[in-house]
Amino acid sequence: MIVFMTDWGSSHYVGICKGVMRSITNDEIVDLTHSITPYNVREAMYILDRSADWFPEKSVFLVVVDYGVGTARKAIAVETDKYYFVAPDNGVLTLVLERYQPKSIIDLVNKKYHLGSSKTFHGRDIFSPAAAYITKGIFNELGTRLPNYATIPYRKAHKSNNVIHGEIAYFDRFGNVETNIPFSWIVEKDSVNLKIGNKTYQIPVVETYADVDEGELLVHEDSTGYVEIAINKGIAREKLRCIEGCEIEVHI
Amino acid sequence: MIVFMTDWGSSHYVGICKGVMRSITNDEIVDLTHSITPYNVREAMYILDRSADWFPEKSVFLVVVDYGVGTARKAIAVETDKYYFVAPDNGVLTLVLERYQPKSIIDLVNKKYHLGSSKTFHGRDIFSPAAAYITKGIFNELGTRLPNYATIPYRKAHKSNNVIHGEIAYFDRFGNVETNIPFSWIVEKDSVNLKIGNKTYQIPVVETYADVDEGELLVHEDSTGYVEIAINKGIAREKLRCIEGCEIEVHI
Amino acid sequence: MIVFMTDWGSSHYVGICKGVMRSITNDEIVDLTHSITPYNVREAMYILDRSADWFPEKSVFLVVVDYGVGTARKAIAVETDKYYFVAPDNGVLTLVLERYQPKSIIDLVNKKYHLGSSKTFHGRDIFSPAAAYITKGIFNELGTRLPNYATIPYRKAHKSNNVIHGEIAYFDRFGNVETNIPFSWIVEKDSVNLKIGNKTYQIPVVETYADVDEGELLVHEDSTGYVEIAINKGIAREKLRCIEGCEIEVHI
Repeated sequence: MIVFMTDWGSSHYVGICKGVMRSITNDEIVDLTHSITPYNVREAMYILDRSADWFPEKSVFLVVVDYGVGTARKAIAVETDKYYFVAPDNGVLTLVLERYQPKSIIDLVNKKYHLGSSKTFHGRDIFSPAAAYITKGIFNELGTRLPNYATIPYRKAHKSNNVIHGEIAYFDRFGNVETNIPFSWIVEKDSVNLKIGNKTYQIPVVETYADVDEGELLVHEDSTGYVEIAINKGIAREKLRCIEGCEIEVHI
Repeated sequence: MIVFMTDWGSSHYVGICKGVMRSITNDEIVDLTHSITPYNVREAMYILDRSADWFPEKSVFLVVVDYGVGTARKAIAVETDKYYFVAPDNGVLTLVLERYQPKSIIDLVNKKYHLGSSKTFHGRDIFSPAAAYITKGIFNELGTRLPNYATIPYRKAHKSNNVIHGEIAYFDRFGNVETNIPFSWIVEKDSVNLKIGNKTYQIPVVETYADVDEGELLVHEDSTGYVEIAINKGIAREKLRCIEGCEIEVHI
Repeated sequence: MIVFMTDWGSSHYVGICKGVMRSITNDEIVDLTHSITPYNVREAMYILDRSADWFPEKSVFLVVVDYGVGTARKAIAVETDKYYFVAPDNGVLTLVLERYQPKSIIDLVNKKYHLGSSKTFHGRDIFSPAAAYITKGIFNELGTRLPNYATIPYRKAHKSNNVIHGEIAYFDRFGNVETNIPFSWIVEKDSVNLKIGNKTYQIPVVETYADVDEGELLVHEDSTGYVEIAINKGIAREKLRCIEGCEIEVHI
C-alpha cells in the first residue's frame, strides 16, 4: 500500500501522480491527506508521525511537502523494519524516523527510475515513481546509499518538576492550536498555566468546547492524544499570536 | 464495499481511519463525502438518505457525524436486508432506516473489536474497526443487541389541498437551500408561494438559474429530485434567514 | 481504470457516481480532480489535456464539467487509440482530441444504459454508467455514431519572429496565471515583455517566487512545462485583470 501525503490540496497534481504510479504498480494508493498547509514541513512532520502507526506493515509513505521551489534538496527513500518512506530530505521525516530506525537510506539519483526531467514537478517525476517501484521490490536500485538524513530542530516535550516544555506542532483548519505535549501529563489537572512568548494564561482543562463560555480559552485532548488549546467558538491561533515551532511552557 | 462519510473535511483523520480499516479488511473503501458541515447531524441524515440507494447491495455505510464532543451516545451497527450502517446513535440514520428496516441493531461495546481507548477519536477506535469487521462477516460479535435506535424529529413532506408542508433539509456549498419536498409535486406550476417564518415569497419555478434576473429567487429541481430554492448569482440562505429543520410551506 | 474529473468539489455527488459505477464494474476509479472552477469548461479542457498522458493506456476519462444547467448538449463517448473519453459535447475535449485522434464518437442516447431519468443529474444517470460500461467492453451499444464533436475556439500558442501569441489557460487556487505557452520558448531569456489587453509589463524570468521582491510580477515554469505568471506573495490574477481565454503576447 502507498500512503500519499502532500500540500497540493485537491488539485490535479494529486491525480497525475496516481496515474504515474498506476503505470508502474497495481498496489493500492490511499490518501493520508493533501491538506497540509503549503510549504509547511513542520506540520507535515507532525501529522505524518501521528498517522503512520495506523497503517499496515510494509506501507510505503509518499510524502511530498517541501519548502518553496528552487531550494536544492535530495530526494530520498528510507527503509525501516515496518515501513518505507519516500520524501524530500528536508527534515519532514525527523519524528517518524526517531521511532522507526532507518535500515537503509537511498539518494534517488538513478534516472532510470525517473520520469521526464521537469525541474518543477519532482512529485510526478521522482517521488511517485520511487514509491511505486518500492512496491515492486525495487529499492537499492533507486540510487546511491546515504549515511544519514536531514532533521529539523524541534522542542521535544519534557517535564521538570511542575513545568512542561513543548512547542506548537501545527494548527488545524479551525485555528485550534495543536501541541506536542501528551495529554496524559495534565489529565488530572483542573486548569494549567500556559506561557507563550511573554504572556501567561490560566486555562481550564476540560472535555469539550462547551465546558467554557464562548470566547474563552480551553485545553483538552485532541484526537491523537495530545494537548490542544482552543477557544469556544473562537480562533485560538489568533488570540495566542503564535506560529508553528513556538515554545510553550505549561505550569501544572 | 465500505462507504465512508464524515464531517472531517480533507484532514488526516480520514486517512488514519482508512489505515485502520485496511489493517482489518481488503474490502474497497469509497468516500461518499467528508464535507458535511461540522456537527450537522441533520444535514448528514439527508445526504445519506439521498445517496444510499446508488450503492451496491451489502455496502457498509460508515457514518461518523455527531454533535459536539463530550455528549455520551452509543455507537451502533445496523443490519438491513440491503445494507449495513455503522454510526453514532444520534438520529443520523433516521431517514435511511425508514426505508431499510433494521433486522438487527448492535451496541458496539465489545472491546475486543475496538482499537486503543481514546475518548476523543471514536471514528478511529470504534466505528472504523466495526465497519471493517462487518465486511469479514463479523456482526453480532461486535456488541450486544439493542431493541431500538435513536431518531431525530423532522417534518416529513406532506400535501393537504393546495399547501405543501416540509422543511429545510440542508444548504449546499453555494448557499442554495435544499428542501425535503419532491419536485414532482410542483413540477407543473409556473410559480409558487413559499412561506418561511412569517414571510411569504412568490417565486418562479424554472429550469435553470439564468431563467430569472440576477439577484432574484427561483425554485428548481435539485440533482436528487427535490425542490431547491436559489438566487441567480446570489445566496438564498442569507436572503431567507433560515436554518436547517426550519418549517416551510409551499402554496401551489 | 476510470479517471474521474468534475467541478463538484468535495460533495456527495462524487460519491454517488462512484456507487453507480461500482454497481456496474469493478474497474478502479481514480480521481483526477474535482476542483475545476464550477462551469469552467476551458479550465477543464486545459487540465485534462495536461494530465491525460500520465495515465495508463485504455484509461476511461470521465469528465463532467459543463456550462450552466439547462443548456442542451449531447453526451458523448469517444474512442481513441490510447484512451476513451466520456463527456458533454461542449468542447471540453478540444485539446485532448487534437493529440488523440477519435476513432469513433458515440452519442449516448441508448436509454438501456442510462439510470433513472433525472433532467438535472446527467453525471449520475448518463455519464457515469457510460464510463463504467466501457470498462466492460460495451461501447458502440451506448448510442449512435456521430460524425464529429464540438470544439471551443482557443488561441494556439505560436511564435513569429520575436513575438509569442497565446492565451490565459486557467488560474490555479492561488490566483497564479497559467498560460498555454511552452516555457521552453522563453527559457533562455532573463526577462520578457508581456502584453495583456492594452497594458505591457516587463517581467523577469526566474526559477522561484523568492527571486523577486514581494509584490513583484515574475514568470517561471509551472509544473507541467508552461509559462506561469505570478506575484511573489501576491495574486497575479487580480493585478493583470484578465480572464481565461484572454489573449497574451510575449515579446522576447
